Amino acid sequence: MVNVTVWNENRHEQKNPVVRDIYPEGIHGAIASFLKEDQVEVKTATLDDPEHGLTDDILNTTDVLIWWGHLAHDEVDDAIVDKVKERVLDGMGLIILHSGHFSKIFKTLMGTTCDLKWREADDKERLWIVEPSHPIVDGIGEYIELEKEEMYGEHFDIPAPDQLIMMSWFEGGEVFRSGCTYQRGNGKIFYFRPGHETYPTYHNDEIQRVIKNAVNWAKPADRSRPVYGNAKPLETIKEKTDS
Amino acid sequence: MVNVTVWNENRHEQKNPVVRDIYPEGIHGAIASFLKEDQVEVKTATLDDPEHGLTDDILNTTDVLIWWGHLAHDEVDDAIVDKVKERVLDGMGLIILHSGHFSKIFKTLMGTTCDLKWREADDKERLWIVEPSHPIVDGIGEYIELEKEEMYGEHFDIPAPDQLIMMSWFEGGEVFRSGCTYQRGNGKIFYFRPGHETYPTYHNDEIQRVIKNAVNWAKPADRSRPVYGNAKPLETIKEKTDS
Amino acid sequence: MVNVTVWNENRHEQKNPVVRDIYPEGIHGAIASFLKEDQVEVKTATLDDPEHGLTDDILNTTDVLIWWGHLAHDEVDDAIVDKVKERVLDGMGLIILHSGHFSKIFKTLMGTTCDLKWREADDKERLWIVEPSHPIVDGIGEYIELEKEEMYGEHFDIPAPDQLIMMSWFEGGEVFRSGCTYQRGNGKIFYFRPGHETYPTYHNDEIQRVIKNAVNWAKPADRSRPVYGNAKPLETIKEKTDS
Amino acid sequence: MVNVTVWNENRHEQKNPVVRDIYPEGIHGAIASFLKEDQVEVKTATLDDPEHGLTDDILNTTDVLIWWGHLAHDEVDDAIVDKVKERVLDGMGLIILHSGHFSKIFKTLMGTTCDLKWREADDKERLWIVEPSHPIVDGIGEYIELEKEEMYGEHFDIPAPDQLIMMSWFEGGEVFRSGCTYQRGNGKIFYFRPGHETYPTYHNDEIQRVIKNAVNWAKPADRSRPVYGNAKPLETIKEKTDS
Repeated sequence: MVNVTVWNENRHEQKNPVVRDIYPEGIHGAIASFLKEDQVEVKTATLDDPEHGLTDDILNTTDVLIWWGHLAHDEVDDAIVDKVKERVLDGMGLIILHSGHFSKIFKTLMGTTCDLKWREADDKERLWIVEPSHPIVDGIGEYIELEKEEMYGEHFDIPAPDQLIMMSWFEGGEVFRSGCTYQRGNGKIFYFRPGHETYPTYHNDEIQRVIKNAVNWAKPADRSRPVYGNAKPLETIKEKTDS
Repeated sequence: MVNVTVWNENRHEQKNPVVRDIYPEGIHGAIASFLKEDQVEVKTATLDDPEHGLTDDILNTTDVLIWWGHLAHDEVDDAIVDKVKERVLDGMGLIILHSGHFSKIFKTLMGTTCDLKWREADDKERLWIVEPSHPIVDGIGEYIELEKEEMYGEHFDIPAPDQLIMMSWFEGGEVFRSGCTYQRGNGKIFYFRPGHETYPTYHNDEIQRVIKNAVNWAKPADRSRPVYGNAKPLETIKEKTDS
Repeated sequence: MVNVTVWNENRHEQKNPVVRDIYPEGIHGAIASFLKEDQVEVKTATLDDPEHGLTDDILNTTDVLIWWGHLAHDEVDDAIVDKVKERVLDGMGLIILHSGHFSKIFKTLMGTTCDLKWREADDKERLWIVEPSHPIVDGIGEYIELEKEEMYGEHFDIPAPDQLIMMSWFEGGEVFRSGCTYQRGNGKIFYFRPGHETYPTYHNDEIQRVIKNAVNWAKPADRSRPVYGNAKPLETIKEKTDS
Repeated sequence: MVNVTVWNENRHEQKNPVVRDIYPEGIHGAIASFLKEDQVEVKTATLDDPEHGLTDDILNTTDVLIWWGHLAHDEVDDAIVDKVKERVLDGMGLIILHSGHFSKIFKTLMGTTCDLKWREADDKERLWIVEPSHPIVDGIGEYIELEKEEMYGEHFDIPAPDQLIMMSWFEGGEVFRSGCTYQRGNGKIFYFRPGHETYPTYHNDEIQRVIKNAVNWAKPADRSRPVYGNAKPLETIKEKTDS
């Protein structure tokens, strides 16, 4: 049984009736709801919860953390970000959705600005699968088509992904690396582009399938952190004369 | 339930009593035996079986093929190699063990000579885990130590692995990329170095664990092959005037 | 001084006046012509030359081979393909243009079908740069726009590139990995998508710049092939007792 | 002409006569000295210089920055680290030597702890070349042997390198990813392991050759930073009806 925590900023839902209409339980509620269809244990947490809902207890029992944020990246406490990072390096999976590209946690794990081009103009998006062997696209066809989405365009300022799984085509003329995996320490990270708050993207069956697959892929391997620091030799080292 | 076929050349076992003593059921028998401990359906096939035991029926129902060969790579029928390659591109997982680095199937999938340095001199081998988040090393410690093994040394003439999971240290002074993943078409490939026929390597618990993990990792995603060839446009293409 | 050989099938130029009008000296002649602007020594070779113009003498003195083929991949002699492959593994750079994706030499070096979607329908193509630090895109803007080109669409059945440098957007709704690097043995390979014979693509300044940059990037490192085969130990191996 | 700045912490040289004997001009002086043999313009800068010697003027005119630090990573001003990072993303090459693995600049660009095993015990080190086509190993043989060096062992907590060029064998039983390239923004990064202050490593011809090659490889491409932020469509976006 995989323990998932869905974290959502949950601010658009408070301010914007369009968003509230699409996601009456919040984006976190919608994601939690379809994840429960799988054999997954799901909790939710939001920015305005105490410690953003990410207490030590929650983090330590989370196998995979899903992250949606947009308006208020700066309000996320640096100390919490540090803890989340530590947990990822310890093995917790991390799935960053859409505008989470600019979250503190993603930027600190990537080491780059994570900047991109964007446009809210009802672009059609078509996500083409370029790595068909990957478990994250199990059950998905050649592409996923979204009638209307926010555009994110290259250059996306990220390190080259360990595995590039999806590339988006946008009606307005741009492309984007939309499904990217990374390994950091003992942890696995998946960035997945779609999910602007004013579109019903997380109600799309194929988008849901990708996120379910990603949860399963990102769950920790059963391993301790490697041992670091001063190390005794495992073999005899010959004494050398000063040359 | 994953369907595994363990393919073995099975010649050393016929000729060399040392090998027969270590693997009385053959290397294929030993591998099949520990795989059955997992919820896996296992068949075996050998070079001297009709069609090398790799009939269309067997191949079409195999999710993951494990390959051990050494003396008689040249005796493997090109037509069978072509079929195995086709199945890998269709999604069948492929695990190449040890001297299988020089098999026709591995060389044709890699596009390089797959050559390397080697020595049979009872080197100690220590396989260090360099990608601790990977499911193939679930349950494995910082390294696997083998008291005696054949040495394989760099340069190993392979394409850069998609993921490098293990690196070997050898007593005689060499290193080697010992656990390498590749994606080809819809299929996933894992090369795993240890397993010289005169050592009891496949009786080692951690080696067994890696192979079990690799079977689980290599199983096909539920996908058809992509559609290739002439394609109708998905969007309207504007008529252009000759410039 | 880099020695470049530009190989061209040179058949469309014989049959199709449209192609001949665009490339009166042949595609090979056009490419050779702009390469000579750099400090590069350029030869050309075509399918109908003896030994396809790729004699041992030519191959052995070629630092970077550029390859354009389309109609007659099957007419390329397997023995010549083997020699070209050997030279790539020895260090010769290889630049595969456009429909060369289906050449014997590219397929054997990749190990996959190299299949793709295609359409001749005057699609607009926009090649976005996704790896801005790479010397192959030195001097290139954010994207290269081609008013009309043949469409190549994903899934492109290649191994994941070592470095993905460009991604194409097509008017008809597809995307494509258009600039891909690979390392094979001592050699470097660059696949570059554009260049359908009925469009003046190789007269485009930015396309020319990319090919010039690629020549410079692909030139061999000053190295012998590694030594393969049986190897004496570099360190003392302890004698082991039979356990 | 490439403009190189060699940055050195320069503290061991002040405290330890052994280090001063090996590097009478400091490690920075030794590196600057052999780089000048190439057609390279070299400056040096040290921790105790004003602004650590990395003024805006120096940074803005540096094509490739070489970094050696060990004892005093924490004394490097965060504001300077931010500027260096910005310059790397703008295109400046960065070569991190040895104990620079724990520098603020490397850790922030990697996003991981960059931790490792270490031992000062006169281990023999042998750096094997695993990517023979790379310009960084131009002119280098199959391996570089160092009679005595500090040991660094896996697991090295870094992202999977874009290109893994060298792997070290250590006498005491460990291995290490010793030559690693990364791309971040417009900049190229090379991590190169050897160079403990009490050994004459930077006087070794092959080590010098690698660093010279790396300078040439890391120099910036001629490019502006990509444009980020809100973007007008390049193609017409159809108006959609609310569904």
